[in-house]
Amino acid sequence: MIFVTHNRHKYEEISKMFSQNGIALRWLNLEYEEIQSESIEKVSLESCRRLSGDVTEDFFLEDSGLLIKHYGNFPGPFSSYVYTTLGTDGILKLMEGIDSRGAEFITVISLFFEGKIFQFTGTVRGKISLEKRGEGGFGYDPIFIPEGFTKTLSELTADEKNTISHRGRAVSKLIEFLKKHNVF
Amino acid sequence: MIFVTHNRHKYEEISKMFSQNGIALRWLNLEYEEIQSESIEKVSLESCRRLSGDVTEDFFLEDSGLLIKHYGNFPGPFSSYVYTTLGTDGILKLMEGIDSRGAEFITVISLFFEGKIFQFTGTVRGKISLEKRGEGGFGYDPIFIPEGFTKTLSELTADEKNTISHRGRAVSKLIEFLKKHNVF
Repeated sequence: MIFVTHNRHKYEEISKMFSQNGIALRWLNLEYEEIQSESIEKVSLESCRRLSGDVTEDFFLEDSGLLIKHYGNFPGPFSSYVYTTLGTDGILKLMEGIDSRGAEFITVISLFFEGKIFQFTGTVRGKISLEKRGEGGFGYDPIFIPEGFTKTLSELTADEKNTISHRGRAVSKLIEFLKKHNVF
Repeated sequence: MIFVTHNRHKYEEISKMFSQNGIALRWLNLEYEEIQSESIEKVSLESCRRLSGDVTEDFFLEDSGLLIKHYGNFPGPFSSYVYTTLGTDGILKLMEGIDSRGAEFITVISLFFEGKIFQFTGTVRGKISLEKRGEGGFGYDPIFIPEGFTKTLSELTADEKNTISHRGRAVSKLIEFLKKHNVF
């Protein structure tokens, strides 16, 4: 199975879960153009459709987004752009003095498998922390506290994070599907 | 000439300049999908290319963006999405305690004319104001003070704004081109 991503962190997280399940994963480090849409599912589906013309084997790709309730689910599908411009400091600044810090992480995986596209979604609810904490993970992990936890995603071990995270949950569904279809 | 936009404010601003120059303008109120790119020129060009297959007459479209220097030119091509989620209040919050408030507005017009695409760009430098001021204009106008002014774009009259604004400057170039090509 091929994972198309330009993000080394994503590849490392997901390949850990694949190897724990005995499924071979190869990394296709590719940057591709995305459509601009407020639906992460739609962005991911469209990317998958386009790439299916270029990638000759079965593959999947992954899109994740942070959704801050107070700001109409900002930054959503633009999470990557907002991370490189505002960063976690910008997000913390936007949350200053705001009581409702509820947020959600979502991952959508689009799998191109035997000529068809399948999508797998994982989410985790939580809140934006008051300050950055932790060294693990990447992206917005240092400022996101999952529901039922006091630690940020960055303060969890890689295995703990994969068990409860949006990405981990979406990948679990993908792995279940692949096992059912005898992909190793 | 046809102007393709889903934004009534943009149509009103631009149609005022066209009528002052005696060129007929029709509004095609259409929402279209955009690519996700950090280059406004590229987004606009690609939209124009795609629409040229559907619109049967010559037309133009317009993309504008606010570029805040301190935040790596955020929100740039995502200005519209950021406006509906963070709004001007969110931008003011992001600027709290930040001394360098420099910003720029840019408009890119892509014209489909006799089978070819032409682009016209207008910019205006300025800074983010300390608070919202004025009732005119739309979007980020109430928090943008053009260089050499003390008023925000919202505090200027429509004609004053068109004389110095990013959009007004791009439209002037477009009108000059159309006149040279005898379009009325």
